[in-house]
Amino acid sequence: MTLLTETIGRVGTLATASMHAARARQLDLTKPAGSLGRLEALHVQLAGIRADPLPVVTHKAVIIMAGDHGVVVEGVSAYPAEVTSQMVLNFVHGGAAINVLARAADARVVIVNAGVGSPLPDLPDMINTPVARGTRNMAREAAMTRSEATAAIELGIRVLEQERARGLDLVATGDMGIGNTTASAAIVAALCGAPVAQVTGRGTGVDDAGLVRKREAIQRALDLLRPDPADPLDVLSKVGGLEIAGLIGVILGAAAERLPIVVDGFISGAAALVAVELCPAVRSFLIAAHSSVEIGHHVVLEKLELAPLLQLDLRLGEGTGAALAFPLIEAACRIPREMATFSEAGVAQREDSGQPAGQGA
Amino acid sequence: MTLLTETIGRVGTLATASMHAARARQLDLTKPAGSLGRLEALHVQLAGIRADPLPVVTHKAVIIMAGDHGVVVEGVSAYPAEVTSQMVLNFVHGGAAINVLARAADARVVIVNAGVGSPLPDLPDMINTPVARGTRNMAREAAMTRSEATAAIELGIRVLEQERARGLDLVATGDMGIGNTTASAAIVAALCGAPVAQVTGRGTGVDDAGLVRKREAIQRALDLLRPDPADPLDVLSKVGGLEIAGLIGVILGAAAERLPIVVDGFISGAAALVAVELCPAVRSFLIAAHSSVEIGHHVVLEKLELAPLLQLDLRLGEGTGAALAFPLIEAACRIPREMATFSEAGVAQREDSGQPAGQGA
Repeated sequence: MTLLTETIGRVGTLATASMHAARARQLDLTKPAGSLGRLEALHVQLAGIRADPLPVVTHKAVIIMAGDHGVVVEGVSAYPAEVTSQMVLNFVHGGAAINVLARAADARVVIVNAGVGSPLPDLPDMINTPVARGTRNMAREAAMTRSEATAAIELGIRVLEQERARGLDLVATGDMGIGNTTASAAIVAALCGAPVAQVTGRGTGVDDAGLVRKREAIQRALDLLRPDPADPLDVLSKVGGLEIAGLIGVILGAAAERLPIVVDGFISGAAALVAVELCPAVRSFLIAAHSSVEIGHHVVLEKLELAPLLQLDLRLGEGTGAALAFPLIEAACRIPREMATFSEAGVAQREDSGQPAGQGA
Repeated sequence: MTLLTETIGRVGTLATASMHAARARQLDLTKPAGSLGRLEALHVQLAGIRADPLPVVTHKAVIIMAGDHGVVVEGVSAYPAEVTSQMVLNFVHGGAAINVLARAADARVVIVNAGVGSPLPDLPDMINTPVARGTRNMAREAAMTRSEATAAIELGIRVLEQERARGLDLVATGDMGIGNTTASAAIVAALCGAPVAQVTGRGTGVDDAGLVRKREAIQRALDLLRPDPADPLDVLSKVGGLEIAGLIGVILGAAAERLPIVVDGFISGAAALVAVELCPAVRSFLIAAHSSVEIGHHVVLEKLELAPLLQLDLRLGEGTGAALAFPLIEAACRIPREMATFSEAGVAQREDSGQPAGQGA
């Protein structure tokens, strides 16, 4: 059995008894029932994931997978391909947006070279085990072989295991890869059966002519390679990316370890989509951090039936939206541990509850 | 000159030079222009408020004003009036939701008895200077005299000044008062000319019969007292509340001190509405934390032309939504201080920018 199939086999279901206990706890706290809205739902979800009515969020990590894309030669991005490796070094030096937001959220950043095009030096704060030097140009041939895609997924699984061993209660997905909104749009178009124009946006900010080239390149890839929507590994290997595959591994590995996964934006969403196609039980372990400006993201969220926590008009990737959602998730878990109950605080219940102060459950 | 008119006179406008410098800084950071969406807009707004291109958010406070409402005798709430004082004690003991969320956001909680119905003991962590023992029943007579309303506003101004002296970079408004969604709905109906049914929701969770009583009580008050929408103090005193007046003072005082104000939900929104009617320049100093479930809140946000940061289906008050927005605002201010620029990081700019790596502005 491969690591991938073994990991998929370990993904369980939410612990309903813990969820029931979490809901009961919420009703005892000194606030009107349901008045903390989605925070209460997050608590219940995390209780189910962790099989603990009072889950604790202490150790947090953003795992950033980086990779390059052969399709960039088609002129699909506003930035040159070398920005991928330059930004990886920026992550290592702590100067990128995700470094700032992870520090603010007291989370560690894990940087993984899953398939950057140019060689990167071995650095103490980077996992430097690329599966390939970028993908091939999907507009002309399959981006990856099936075994390359699988190897990149298994890299992600191994990284997750390694991070779990360091202590991990909450994991977020982050990405870096010039050209990766093109790969993500192709995955979403193939898996959701959506028209290319509906799922292909401007990425980092490509101009009108670039957007036309981007859509044409994706359409050409889909027409040429005919990825099979019933075979998620076929879709991933033909039109995906090495960093996207790595994130799929992170997601599968985290679900197998009963860890909540905060899914960032469009690229992470495409990875989550493939992960759920490979293993539908993964869906319950996902938290959608935010709704991206990138137009295809809402198609992903609808397909996954996930409601994003934040709508901040972000379109950066790197895991930035996910890091911004961390404090909400932590707060959701602190509420049931730290708030007083009606009886503890001597606060009267609803006039129709039949439970005066001091006699509440 | 009274403290109120003097405070209104001190409210200035945003510092456009600092906002311009903040926008320029954003363009230099290693990310596509605009890709951090509302975080970038928050940075620019805070730069204008603080007259500092790189504003710092260190000291944060949630100021909770508590007061009781005579209109509760009309059966408008799901909870008995004594819950106001019980919850104030819960705040003092650190057991309420706002205590947990403020701790999580590293913010202090300031509890003010602006007009609770029953006497409260003097406690070290509470400002215990009620203007009155609750309001009168607006369905039968004016809730407050004009001088009571002004005194409660001035209490809020004094509390803000006191907190500013302790160190304050960001202030949030919080409320506690059984019956205060009734008062807030009446204020919003009067100031926005909105039908009572459009702005009156279930508050803490009143049942169908209670909702009918609540709407009838508000309509009766408006018909009887005819608050003048051109005179915000008339509206406030006739159908408002002492804690709402206190929050108006906090908002006016904070704007006068060039402090950003994070406005919580419906009750805080009603206070912000009155503050802006009293002094339109206040609007630029406001940040809407979240969109409440309470149906009248969107009317407030539209009238104030504020877009909420969070949509988490909250309806608790206390400043809980505002405390949840604190990390986003702090993160927005850390980004421009801590991120590397393109030239610092040696990252290439857009291919159409004419600024290769190392030569960026």
